[in-house]
Amino acid sequence: MNPSSKPIRILGIDPGSRTTGFGIIDVYGREHVYVASGCIKTISGDELAGRIAVICQHIAELIDTYRPQQAAVEQVFVNVNPASTLMLGQARGAAIAALTMRGLPVYEYTALQVKQAVVGQGKAAKEQVQHMVVRMLALSGTPQADAADGLAVALTHALRNHGLASKLNPDSMRIKGGRFHL
Amino acid sequence: MNPSSKPIRILGIDPGSRTTGFGIIDVYGREHVYVASGCIKTISGDELAGRIAVICQHIAELIDTYRPQQAAVEQVFVNVNPASTLMLGQARGAAIAALTMRGLPVYEYTALQVKQAVVGQGKAAKEQVQHMVVRMLALSGTPQADAADGLAVALTHALRNHGLASKLNPDSMRIKGGRFHL
Repeated sequence: MNPSSKPIRILGIDPGSRTTGFGIIDVYGREHVYVASGCIKTISGDELAGRIAVICQHIAELIDTYRPQQAAVEQVFVNVNPASTLMLGQARGAAIAALTMRGLPVYEYTALQVKQAVVGQGKAAKEQVQHMVVRMLALSGTPQADAADGLAVALTHALRNHGLASKLNPDSMRIKGGRFHL
Repeated sequence: MNPSSKPIRILGIDPGSRTTGFGIIDVYGREHVYVASGCIKTISGDELAGRIAVICQHIAELIDTYRPQQAAVEQVFVNVNPASTLMLGQARGAAIAALTMRGLPVYEYTALQVKQAVVGQGKAAKEQVQHMVVRMLALSGTPQADAADGLAVALTHALRNHGLASKLNPDSMRIKGGRFHL
């Protein structure tokens, strides 16, 4: 790590209908430094508007406290249960709303992209992702699963953009939907 | 209408993955007065974060311009297509996030409750809802379908709470999820 270089701070979000995981990292060139992680829990019995308010408020507080410059959000799976899919969509929409309303650029990555970036193959188990997050960020303990997923999506954004950015002229590219467009 | 009484201004929202309808009404006791209506359109080819930003920004502008005191949001149907259900959920979550982040209390009503409140029966066709919205608000023209749905959900909130409020002691009740709890 070169402490004199200015880091880019990334907030990774793994949305869920009950628990939204988050992870914040600083990126110094090829080095990634852990800043914070955790999860936002909503009470399943609460009305939807109340649950959405909890998600938005916590994300706004994270942004105010840590001042990330970019956000990466994991794309969620559609569930076999349509009501669960709707609930998950609502939680994810609220999280992205909270990010965009604070002016953060939002990049999206599928679970496959996260596994490929962090573990090196798309069929990796959840534990392998957790293990690699611990290793890549030199953590002394294993973070809770949702927090690890938040860190993993932040790392994915850092890894994918670093690899591409080193090959491309930064002035000619535009990031959209987690991909670079020339 | 008694112009001396202080109205309650309600913002009704009918969320959709492409078009979010809205309607604003003033409630003076049993009288309902049209204030504004319209729809927020997103471009389907745009990335999700951009579409969510459009929804949030427009709702924030509506709140700043018209200063409603309460919001009513229609509950959406789960679609046969899980991807559509997820998209609809994301749009709805973003709309509710925009409302709660501006401190508006949000009440939810099913399509059945809207039809029952506005037309008098749950099996009413979309055109009957539009017709009743025009009649109840003494409109000179028929609003666009999504805008009419926004007005209909605002009217539902006004009608359901007025009817119940007249029978109950207002100090002992609490509104939650579109229903009164004693």
